[in-house]
Amino acid sequence: MKVRYKVWLDNDGKAFGDGPYELLKQVDETHSLHRAAKEMGMAYSKAWRLIGAMEKRLGFLLIERKVGGLSGGGSLVTPRARNLMNHYERFRKDAEKGLEKIYRKHFDDIERKGWK
Amino acid sequence: MKVRYKVWLDNDGKAFGDGPYELLKQVDETHSLHRAAKEMGMAYSKAWRLIGAMEKRLGFLLIERKVGGLSGGGSLVTPRARNLMNHYERFRKDAEKGLEKIYRKHFDDIERKGWK
Repeated sequence: MKVRYKVWLDNDGKAFGDGPYELLKQVDETHSLHRAAKEMGMAYSKAWRLIGAMEKRLGFLLIERKVGGLSGGGSLVTPRARNLMNHYERFRKDAEKGLEKIYRKHFDDIERKGWK
Repeated sequence: MKVRYKVWLDNDGKAFGDGPYELLKQVDETHSLHRAAKEMGMAYSKAWRLIGAMEKRLGFLLIERKVGGLSGGGSLVTPRARNLMNHYERFRKDAEKGLEKIYRKHFDDIERKGWK
Protein backbone atom coordinates (compact mmCIF):
# COMPACT_ATOMS: atom_id res chain seq x y z
CA MET A 1 0.00 0.00 0.00
CA LYS A 2 1.12 3.55 -0.54
CA VAL A 3 -0.12 7.07 -0.05
CA ARG A 4 -1.27 9.09 -3.04
CA TYR A 5 -2.36 12.70 -3.23
CA LYS A 6 -3.09 15.75 -5.26
CA VAL A 7 -2.15 19.18 -4.02
CA TRP A 8 -2.89 22.61 -5.44
CA LEU A 9 -3.16 26.30 -4.56
CA ASP A 10 -6.59 27.84 -4.30
CA ASN A 11 -7.82 31.42 -4.42
CA ASP A 12 -11.60 31.22 -4.88
CA GLY A 13 -10.93 28.38 -7.29
CA LYS A 14 -7.82 26.57 -8.48
CA ALA A 15 -4.99 29.09 -8.72
CA PHE A 16 -1.97 26.86 -9.39
CA GLY A 17 -0.99 23.21 -9.44
CA ASP A 18 1.05 20.52 -11.15
CA GLY A 19 -0.61 20.99 -14.56
CA PRO A 20 -0.03 24.76 -14.79
CA TYR A 21 3.49 24.26 -13.43
CA GLU A 22 4.34 21.74 -16.15
CA LEU A 23 2.80 23.94 -18.81
CA LEU A 24 4.84 26.96 -17.71
CA LYS A 25 7.98 24.83 -17.63
CA GLN A 26 7.33 23.85 -21.24
CA VAL A 27 6.70 27.49 -22.20
CA ASP A 28 10.00 28.36 -20.56
CA GLU A 29 11.79 25.68 -22.58
CA THR A 30 10.09 26.18 -25.93
CA HIS A 31 9.29 29.92 -25.75
CA SER A 32 5.93 29.06 -27.23
CA LEU A 33 2.55 28.31 -25.68
CA HIS A 34 1.68 26.45 -28.89
CA ARG A 35 4.62 24.08 -28.52
CA ALA A 36 4.15 23.85 -24.74
CA ALA A 37 0.53 22.76 -25.17
CA LYS A 38 1.55 20.26 -27.84
CA GLU A 39 4.20 18.75 -25.55
CA MET A 40 1.51 18.25 -22.90
CA GLY A 41 -0.98 16.76 -25.38
CA MET A 42 -3.28 19.68 -24.64
CA ALA A 43 -5.28 21.76 -27.13
CA TYR A 44 -3.86 25.28 -27.53
CA SER A 45 -7.25 26.79 -26.68
CA LYS A 46 -7.38 24.78 -23.45
CA ALA A 47 -3.83 25.82 -22.51
CA TRP A 48 -4.74 29.43 -23.17
CA ARG A 49 -7.91 29.20 -21.03
CA LEU A 50 -5.96 27.46 -18.26
CA ILE A 51 -3.32 30.20 -18.17
CA GLY A 52 -6.05 32.86 -18.22
CA ALA A 53 -7.94 31.27 -15.32
CA MET A 54 -4.75 30.99 -13.22
CA GLU A 55 -3.75 34.60 -13.99
CA LYS A 56 -7.16 35.79 -12.88
CA ARG A 57 -6.97 33.94 -9.57
CA LEU A 58 -3.33 34.83 -8.94
CA GLY A 59 -3.79 38.47 -9.90
CA PHE A 60 -0.77 38.72 -12.21
CA LEU A 61 0.34 37.63 -15.67
CA LEU A 62 2.08 34.28 -16.12
CA ILE A 63 3.21 34.60 -19.71
CA GLU A 64 3.90 37.53 -21.99
CA ARG A 65 3.82 37.65 -25.71
CA LYS A 66 7.09 38.47 -27.44
CA VAL A 67 6.17 40.16 -30.70
CA GLY A 68 8.10 40.03 -33.97
CA GLY A 69 11.86 39.71 -34.34
CA LEU A 70 13.66 37.18 -36.50
CA SER A 71 12.01 34.28 -34.70
CA GLY A 72 8.56 35.75 -35.30
CA GLY A 73 7.62 36.18 -31.65
CA GLY A 74 6.59 33.65 -29.03
CA SER A 75 5.74 33.41 -25.35
CA LEU A 76 7.87 34.05 -22.30
CA VAL A 77 7.32 33.23 -18.65
CA THR A 78 7.03 36.46 -16.61
CA PRO A 79 9.39 37.09 -13.66
CA ARG A 80 6.46 36.65 -11.23
CA ALA A 81 5.56 33.36 -12.84
CA ARG A 82 9.16 32.23 -12.47
CA ASN A 83 9.08 33.23 -8.81
CA LEU A 84 5.87 31.25 -8.34
CA MET A 85 7.34 28.24 -10.16
CA ASN A 86 10.41 28.26 -7.92
CA HIS A 87 8.32 28.45 -4.77
CA TYR A 88 5.90 25.83 -6.01
CA GLU A 89 8.71 23.45 -6.93
CA ARG A 90 10.20 23.58 -3.44
CA PHE A 91 6.77 23.38 -1.82
CA ARG A 92 5.92 20.34 -3.95
CA LYS A 93 9.07 18.46 -2.98
CA ASP A 94 8.51 19.18 0.71
CA ALA A 95 4.86 18.15 0.45
CA GLU A 96 5.87 14.83 -1.11
CA LYS A 97 8.49 14.12 1.53
CA GLY A 98 6.19 15.28 4.35
CA LEU A 99 3.22 13.18 3.29
CA GLU A 100 5.38 10.11 2.78
CA LYS A 101 6.77 10.55 6.29
CA ILE A 102 3.31 11.05 7.82
CA TYR A 103 2.03 7.99 5.98
CA ARG A 104 4.90 5.86 7.29
CA LYS A 105 4.37 7.14 10.82
CA HIS A 106 0.80 5.89 10.84
CA PHE A 107 0.92 2.83 8.61
CA ASP A 108 4.41 1.35 8.79
CA ASP A 109 3.64 -1.04 11.65
CA ILE A 110 0.53 -2.22 9.85
CA GLU A 111 2.44 -2.73 6.61
CA ARG A 112 4.79 -4.99 8.58
CA LYS A 113 2.35 -6.83 10.83
CA GLY A 114 -0.76 -6.76 8.67
CA TRP A 115 -4.26 -5.63 9.62
CA LYS A 116 -5.83 -7.03 12.78
CA MET B 1 -4.47 31.96 -1.12
CA LYS B 2 -4.52 28.58 0.55
CA VAL B 3 -3.34 25.05 -0.03
CA ARG B 4 -5.85 22.37 -0.98
CA TYR B 5 -5.34 18.67 -1.44
CA LYS B 6 -6.78 15.23 -1.75
CA VAL B 7 -5.10 12.28 -0.15
CA TRP B 8 -5.87 8.57 -0.36
CA LEU B 9 -4.39 5.11 0.07
CA ASP B 10 -3.57 3.08 -3.00
CA ASN B 11 -3.02 -0.61 -3.59
CA ASP B 12 -3.14 -1.11 -7.37
CA GLY B 13 -6.07 1.32 -7.34
CA LYS B 14 -7.80 3.40 -4.69
CA ALA B 15 -7.86 1.36 -1.48
CA PHE B 16 -9.16 3.91 1.05
CA GLY B 17 -9.89 7.60 1.36
CA ASP B 18 -12.20 10.25 2.79
CA GLY B 19 -15.32 8.92 1.02
CA PRO B 20 -14.99 5.32 2.25
CA TYR B 21 -14.04 6.62 5.69
CA GLU B 22 -17.20 8.73 5.92
CA LEU B 23 -19.33 5.88 4.63
CA LEU B 24 -17.94 3.47 7.25
CA LYS B 25 -18.48 6.07 9.95
CA GLN B 26 -22.13 6.28 8.93
CA VAL B 27 -22.43 2.49 8.89
CA ASP B 28 -20.97 2.46 12.39
CA GLU B 29 -23.55 4.99 13.56
CA THR B 30 -26.61 3.66 11.76
CA HIS B 31 -25.74 -0.08 11.65
CA SER B 32 -27.04 -0.05 8.11
CA LEU B 33 -25.35 0.41 4.74
CA HIS B 34 -28.72 1.52 3.38
CA ARG B 35 -29.02 4.36 5.88
CA ALA B 36 -25.29 5.16 5.59
CA ALA B 37 -25.58 5.55 1.81
CA LYS B 38 -28.70 7.68 2.23
CA GLU B 39 -26.92 9.97 4.71
CA MET B 40 -24.17 10.47 2.13
CA GLY B 41 -26.61 11.10 -0.72
CA MET B 42 -25.23 8.01 -2.44
CA ALA B 43 -27.15 5.22 -4.18
CA TYR B 44 -27.10 1.97 -2.19
CA SER B 45 -25.71 0.09 -5.20
CA LYS B 46 -22.85 2.58 -5.47
CA ALA B 47 -22.08 2.34 -1.76
CA TRP B 48 -22.04 -1.44 -2.07
CA ARG B 49 -19.70 -1.36 -5.08
CA LEU B 50 -17.44 1.12 -3.31
CA ILE B 51 -17.14 -1.10 -0.23
CA GLY B 52 -16.52 -4.14 -2.45
CA ALA B 53 -13.76 -2.38 -4.40
CA MET B 54 -12.02 -1.22 -1.20
CA GLU B 55 -12.29 -4.70 0.37
CA LYS B 56 -10.70 -6.24 -2.70
CA ARG B 57 -7.75 -3.83 -2.63
CA LEU B 58 -7.31 -3.99 1.13
CA GLY B 59 -7.63 -7.76 1.26
CA PHE B 60 -10.14 -7.92 4.12
CA LEU B 61 -13.82 -7.26 4.82
CA LEU B 62 -14.93 -3.80 5.93
CA ILE B 63 -18.53 -4.55 6.88
CA GLU B 64 -20.35 -7.68 7.93
CA ARG B 65 -24.00 -8.45 7.66
CA LYS B 66 -25.87 -9.01 10.91
CA VAL B 67 -28.72 -11.38 10.08
CA GLY B 68 -32.12 -11.52 11.78
CA GLY B 69 -32.89 -10.63 15.37
CA LEU B 70 -35.60 -8.23 16.52
CA SER B 71 -34.16 -5.39 14.49
CA GLY B 72 -34.18 -7.51 11.33
CA GLY B 73 -30.42 -7.45 10.75
CA GLY B 74 -28.17 -4.70 9.49
CA SER B 75 -24.49 -3.97 8.81
CA LEU B 76 -21.57 -3.71 11.20
CA VAL B 77 -18.07 -2.37 10.74
CA THR B 78 -15.51 -5.20 11.15
CA PRO B 79 -12.72 -4.92 13.76
CA ARG B 80 -10.16 -4.56 10.97
CA ALA B 81 -12.19 -1.79 9.39
CA ARG B 82 -12.33 -0.05 12.76
CA ASN B 83 -8.57 -0.39 13.09
CA LEU B 84 -8.13 1.09 9.60
CA MET B 85 -10.54 3.94 10.40
CA ASN B 86 -8.61 4.80 13.56
CA HIS B 87 -5.29 4.82 11.73
CA TYR B 88 -6.70 6.77 8.81
CA GLU B 89 -8.26 9.37 11.10
CA ARG B 90 -4.95 10.11 12.80
CA PHE B 91 -3.08 10.02 9.49
CA ARG B 92 -5.60 12.44 8.00
CA LYS B 93 -5.22 14.96 10.84
CA ASP B 94 -1.44 14.82 10.63
CA ALA B 95 -1.52 15.18 6.84
CA GLU B 96 -3.69 18.29 7.15
CA LYS B 97 -1.45 19.88 9.77
CA GLY B 98 1.71 18.87 7.90
CA LEU B 99 0.63 20.23 4.53
CA GLU B 100 -0.58 23.48 6.09
CA LYS B 101 2.81 23.90 7.75
CA ILE B 102 4.71 23.12 4.54
CA TYR B 103 2.55 25.56 2.63
CA ARG B 104 3.21 28.33 5.16
CA LYS B 105 6.93 27.60 5.09
CA HIS B 106 7.07 28.24 1.36
CA PHE B 107 4.37 30.85 0.80
CA ASP B 108 3.99 32.87 3.99
CA ASP B 109 6.48 35.56 3.00
CA ILE B 110 4.78 35.90 -0.38
CA GLU B 111 1.35 36.13 1.21
CA ARG B 112 2.68 39.04 3.24
CA LYS B 113 4.83 40.84 0.65
CA GLY B 114 3.00 39.88 -2.52
CA TRP B 115 4.45 38.40 -5.71
CA LYS B 116 7.45 40.06 -7.28
